[in-house]
Amino acid sequence: MEKKVRPLILVTNDDSYQAKGIQSLVKAMSAIGKVVVVAPDKPQSGMGHAVTIHDPIRIQRIEMPFADVAYSCSGTPVDCVKIALYTVLERTPDIVVSGINHGSNASINVIYSGTMSAAVEAAVEGIPSIGFSLLDYSADADFEASTKVATTLVQTVLADAHFPENTCLNVNIPKGKEIAGIKICRQANGMWKEQFEKRTDPFQKDYYWMTGEFVIKDKGEDTDQHALDNNYASVVPVQFDLTAHHAIAHLQNWDV
Amino acid sequence: MEKKVRPLILVTNDDSYQAKGIQSLVKAMSAIGKVVVVAPDKPQSGMGHAVTIHDPIRIQRIEMPFADVAYSCSGTPVDCVKIALYTVLERTPDIVVSGINHGSNASINVIYSGTMSAAVEAAVEGIPSIGFSLLDYSADADFEASTKVATTLVQTVLADAHFPENTCLNVNIPKGKEIAGIKICRQANGMWKEQFEKRTDPFQKDYYWMTGEFVIKDKGEDTDQHALDNNYASVVPVQFDLTAHHAIAHLQNWDV
Repeated sequence: MEKKVRPLILVTNDDSYQAKGIQSLVKAMSAIGKVVVVAPDKPQSGMGHAVTIHDPIRIQRIEMPFADVAYSCSGTPVDCVKIALYTVLERTPDIVVSGINHGSNASINVIYSGTMSAAVEAAVEGIPSIGFSLLDYSADADFEASTKVATTLVQTVLADAHFPENTCLNVNIPKGKEIAGIKICRQANGMWKEQFEKRTDPFQKDYYWMTGEFVIKDKGEDTDQHALDNNYASVVPVQFDLTAHHAIAHLQNWDV
Repeated sequence: MEKKVRPLILVTNDDSYQAKGIQSLVKAMSAIGKVVVVAPDKPQSGMGHAVTIHDPIRIQRIEMPFADVAYSCSGTPVDCVKIALYTVLERTPDIVVSGINHGSNASINVIYSGTMSAAVEAAVEGIPSIGFSLLDYSADADFEASTKVATTLVQTVLADAHFPENTCLNVNIPKGKEIAGIKICRQANGMWKEQFEKRTDPFQKDYYWMTGEFVIKDKGEDTDQHALDNNYASVVPVQFDLTAHHAIAHLQNWDV
């Protein structure tokens, strides 16, 4: 029997290569396959699907425990995926994993999230991908339960010959040592009600800090937020066709 | 007969308040309603749905022809919408318009676009919104045809009591004086095949410029790209539920 080629796993995130979340993920992935890391050289939370257009991008070889090869990158999480695929890697990876993010990317957070945008970018490229987030913002969060979930899901996706095309997974894991299980969900309808705190700098100029409160407008029991509220890890399949297909018929009645 | 209250129109973009595109849009909107501008103080192309989390945001009152009130903002296009809604405006605007972008936001470009992310953010807030883009990158592009399209569509949306909830429009306009008409479309399936051009700086360090080629993988005649290729302005209704609903049943068969 021939030895099977080890899967090639690209790892990135948005909290930078120095975050505990990506280090935990890299360690878990090293038990599954060959791990190449290309991750931001500084925190890039909330970068959404930003790409670097008018500036050059730099990458630098770094040492990272459990990674076969690792680079830091001056760009956004999406830049990291692009430069990894087109410059760093010699072949298309079998899977791209992003995270483990420090903080939730459930519900509407998916559109602001650099972690998830990296996973979406891989899906655009036709590569199965997963973004992982732990509902714990602290720098020294406990990633034990979330790395177990990551291991299970990465093995499942790699073994699934019929994983849906141009799709990635948005996986959120509740805080704590024990979770109730894993649930397949849809994205909950929610939003941030912002507050802008106005301050005056030492030079008498105003500035604002944006803060906000997350509001769920969705009573569904099949949502990611509902799963998380009940101590389940949530798995939402995510795609990038933003067309509101249900609205097309209405617009076609317009006289324009 | 009482005089009807003029609609309140919030205008933003991603090319900055100094771009010809937003100045043309502001002029066109001033014929329809009261215009408040909150636009980036520097170009923010490719910023996607980025938000400013760890830095303060500043706004500054500026003079802008045809605007009732105008501010420049240090943040991203999404920040502009948030700070406008929560700080600048005294009431919810009747519509938010973004653009007119210099360059296409059709097909997959919608996910990288700051112009469209501003419109999506308004949709998250439940406000009808439209992002406009002209297929002409030049700074002195001719916005005559596109401001006509913008006027028609803004009037149509304002008059439509049943405009779909939590939806915005991604409107792209072909280059040139005359267009064939306006078509309601879906987002074409396409992607950027990137190229990274490696250079060496004067200090012997490598850096990369990201360039790319846009590839359409969609033969459909109901797509935005197909409409634009046939000299029509394309109108795609856009929503922010990224769930790949068609993939849920497949994932539910997993033993996880």
